[in-house]
Amino acid sequence: MSVSVREASPRDLVTVGRLLHDFNREFGEESPPPEVLGGRLEALVDGGDTAVLLAGDDASGVAVLRYRRAIWSEGLECYLAELYVVPERRGQGIGRALMTAAIEHARARGADRMEIGVDEPDTAARGLYESFGFTNRSGGALMFVYERDL
Amino acid sequence: MSVSVREASPRDLVTVGRLLHDFNREFGEESPPPEVLGGRLEALVDGGDTAVLLAGDDASGVAVLRYRRAIWSEGLECYLAELYVVPERRGQGIGRALMTAAIEHARARGADRMEIGVDEPDTAARGLYESFGFTNRSGGALMFVYERDL
Repeated sequence: MSVSVREASPRDLVTVGRLLHDFNREFGEESPPPEVLGGRLEALVDGGDTAVLLAGDDASGVAVLRYRRAIWSEGLECYLAELYVVPERRGQGIGRALMTAAIEHARARGADRMEIGVDEPDTAARGLYESFGFTNRSGGALMFVYERDL
Repeated sequence: MSVSVREASPRDLVTVGRLLHDFNREFGEESPPPEVLGGRLEALVDGGDTAVLLAGDDASGVAVLRYRRAIWSEGLECYLAELYVVPERRGQGIGRALMTAAIEHARARGADRMEIGVDEPDTAARGLYESFGFTNRSGGALMFVYERDL
């Protein structure tokens, strides 16, 4: 069964806000309410550096892409900021369909590199990314994300 | 000895391009020529999402910050895209001065989170970041960067 993926319209963004809200809550993290997230995504999409991809007629998954000009190349760099599939629809190729659409979107937009941050225990996501040719090694060395609140 | 750090002016950006070029060459990677990097940085700084900090009167180190609006908070997120100190000036507190200035810059700009990508063997940089409160763990789990060319 093929899974349709389309770019979210402004009227989808509260639905997307709910998906991202559920995403964070599933992992026990704080989240702003869905309508706040939806409003923020609308501002980001309007600002031009963000695209939101929605899977299926039932909004069973979402990918959020952030773009900016690269330093080391003429193109854009794409950051896959979020990728989420609702629990009851996992294992049905929705993540795979979202990743395929995300890479197509990024190439069409002029990105020549895509980056993702992933936690080590998230083996399902890591396996998905690796199956799409992503690696967490540079010249053999693991690449870490370091972060802090300011 | 204190190390002065200032925001680079447009006329500094070819110098900064040379530093970044030397940075990449030191690690055996391809790099565009300094003047191309300088021109690209000028466009990024003009575009408003990038700040370049330069250490010392002799341009002994550089930090490049990228900003964008966050999804999970009202503020900006800051990505420390580059941090480089010339080999002959290492161990003199220049990286520390650049990090102090980078955090001040990000807070003043309205960022509430800073993120960095670091290779595992780069223990000097990792130690520096950790001494500034950065961590590569989220709830105990290591956080990886995954990437691929498109």
